[in-house]
Amino acid sequence: MKKLLILCCAVLLSGVAMAQQALWGASPLVSPEINTDNTVTFRYRAPKAVKVQITGDFLPTQKVSTPFGEMDAPGVADLIEGKDGVWEFKTEKPLSPELYSYSLIVDGLRVNDPSNIYQLRDVASITNIFIIGGQRADLYKVNKVPHGAITRRWYHSPSLDMDRRVTIYTPAAYDKNTKERFPVLYLLHGMGGDEEAWATLGRTVQIMDNLIAQGKAKPMLVVMTNGNAAQEAAPGESSIGLQAVNMQMPRTMEGSFETHFPEVVKFVDANYRTIANKQNRAIAGLSMGGFHSMHISKQYPDMFNYVGLFSAAIMPQQGVTSPIYQDLEQKLATQFAKKPALYWIAIGKTDFLFQANVDYRKMLDEKGYKYEYYENEDGHIWKNWRIYLTEFAPMLFQTKK
Amino acid sequence: MKKLLILCCAVLLSGVAMAQQALWGASPLVSPEINTDNTVTFRYRAPKAVKVQITGDFLPTQKVSTPFGEMDAPGVADLIEGKDGVWEFKTEKPLSPELYSYSLIVDGLRVNDPSNIYQLRDVASITNIFIIGGQRADLYKVNKVPHGAITRRWYHSPSLDMDRRVTIYTPAAYDKNTKERFPVLYLLHGMGGDEEAWATLGRTVQIMDNLIAQGKAKPMLVVMTNGNAAQEAAPGESSIGLQAVNMQMPRTMEGSFETHFPEVVKFVDANYRTIANKQNRAIAGLSMGGFHSMHISKQYPDMFNYVGLFSAAIMPQQGVTSPIYQDLEQKLATQFAKKPALYWIAIGKTDFLFQANVDYRKMLDEKGYKYEYYENEDGHIWKNWRIYLTEFAPMLFQTKK
Repeated sequence: MKKLLILCCAVLLSGVAMAQQALWGASPLVSPEINTDNTVTFRYRAPKAVKVQITGDFLPTQKVSTPFGEMDAPGVADLIEGKDGVWEFKTEKPLSPELYSYSLIVDGLRVNDPSNIYQLRDVASITNIFIIGGQRADLYKVNKVPHGAITRRWYHSPSLDMDRRVTIYTPAAYDKNTKERFPVLYLLHGMGGDEEAWATLGRTVQIMDNLIAQGKAKPMLVVMTNGNAAQEAAPGESSIGLQAVNMQMPRTMEGSFETHFPEVVKFVDANYRTIANKQNRAIAGLSMGGFHSMHISKQYPDMFNYVGLFSAAIMPQQGVTSPIYQDLEQKLATQFAKKPALYWIAIGKTDFLFQANVDYRKMLDEKGYKYEYYENEDGHIWKNWRIYLTEFAPMLFQTKK
Repeated sequence: MKKLLILCCAVLLSGVAMAQQALWGASPLVSPEINTDNTVTFRYRAPKAVKVQITGDFLPTQKVSTPFGEMDAPGVADLIEGKDGVWEFKTEKPLSPELYSYSLIVDGLRVNDPSNIYQLRDVASITNIFIIGGQRADLYKVNKVPHGAITRRWYHSPSLDMDRRVTIYTPAAYDKNTKERFPVLYLLHGMGGDEEAWATLGRTVQIMDNLIAQGKAKPMLVVMTNGNAAQEAAPGESSIGLQAVNMQMPRTMEGSFETHFPEVVKFVDANYRTIANKQNRAIAGLSMGGFHSMHISKQYPDMFNYVGLFSAAIMPQQGVTSPIYQDLEQKLATQFAKKPALYWIAIGKTDFLFQANVDYRKMLDEKGYKYEYYENEDGHIWKNWRIYLTEFAPMLFQTKK
């Protein structure tokens, strides 16, 4: 046993692991602790700190002042110092089923919870996460169901003149039934995101595994592209190295990504057992990805039979001249004349793009174009995009070919 | 442009992203900054802090006292407070090419560098990383070379009675030459690790992509298993949920994993275009994974032609009774009588397992069993295991079948 312990210690000491504390220093903290009534307790050891706070999406939002006016931001609550310098905060009420994220603020500085290794990166911020199970949130968990596979690989884009990284989910049935062909959902991220966003923040693997296992969604591939035309891959995964992430992502909404999209479809159809026709292709995206989905699906009206706009940006910026954005009305007329099986628009009531979507639906209504609409609470946040995926995926590929 | 900025802001405000500071608050810090002479500057904004330090594997090690005696731990250096509460530390000398990790210590509390989104988890600790390029460290970078794919998927283990997650690298040639069959390296992690360890800390994808592109290694699959027999998958990826990680990992070195290993090989041979024979299979692992590789390769002497023991634990603990560990001498005699193409032992001079490897080599020498030996500086750390992979992979599958 001593030999084993030495091995453990050596493992922990390797690198810069300071985790030996957990073995022979202070007792390890449990944080977050999800209590039996679904209240949650957070703990942080900081004997010298003057103030320890928590900010997270389970706290009531607060108004923050920005150059563009007031906006909602996650609320902040104080932790109380107890013995041994351990600060603690327990939520006032039980939390509803959901995947939540949070950070701690120690004397004004944002830090991650060292007791919680589960983190997600959203653009340039890394936050801790936890899940309150039950209801829809059970779809976000890894459950004992047949698991699909997730692959990060590369395709060549002739028009963008580069190799580009793509994330592809294949359902459990894909590897089990090796003669069968499958439909494909193309799932697009928002501004600041990349080919990792849906797989990590969006819980796509868990949602698809669970929906398919429950018989609620058909087995399908999900292809998660990188929508920044100038970017080979997510931060850290491309030849530019471990650069700092900033919001300067040229070529995000200027037509290049949309123009190149058939190259992705061609790659997927050439390398996977897909059913390579419109009836078996869907495209959906969040925010900028909704914008991309809207413009790609009308530009290539014979490519996708199912379209999902999640909290979508709609109109191109002024001054952008890509042919993709021209003749909008005529292209929509062509697309809707071909009667897509589903044109689905979803948005939250407090989303800053809410009015843009009202205007867009008004236009569709005036033309008599058929779409379905899903409206819920909250705004432009991942909570909603996960919900939209759980609503959208079950509607796909249910009609006979 | 204003519309775009609002979209950016909304993206940044979503979740608990507090990154709006970067847009309209304090100017963003660059940290780490790799200077042109390969010195590195670290920065952290903490106007109220009394003391800010850095600990990392580029600093001279320090002795720490443990229940098992003195051990080496990463050194610590002080940051100096400058204007606007920005603390700074610049390395005294240029750093050699390497992948380094570090954390900050603010008034005694370990935090990650908020300016650096690049992090790695090692067991229960998350640290920041950066790379100084050049020489061998260029193998750890993503370069403009043909990229292989990396897949996380599941196989069923009848003997362990569970579905288990596995990480599989396929070289670029695998998808390009769809008629060709490929050899396979099985690559095993150490105690506290899982099927993510080699892919993340070990930079396996980058190392293999680069070695293959340079013609130094043959295109091969790399299969990274989970060596904890009681564990379905890495933390957060299994049905036990987002549990805290601890070192209590039952069934790590008691024979079950080794016994089940042919099930992995069978799964890989059934699902990939492998060359399914001994001449085209290698097995290697670090620490506990070296122990596993040693015992698996002698237990199944017709399965692997190449064996790599990286900083390997050698002997089973007292009281462990698995048949796997019985008749050691006789099994080694059988294995070496079949003349493996390569039996490679690598260890660092200050590794706490150094003497155990000296003893093991002495035994092999006495028996006249042929092996190759690689010794270098440092101890039981990932730096060495990455080096060993870059040394080991080029020696594989070079002989004619």
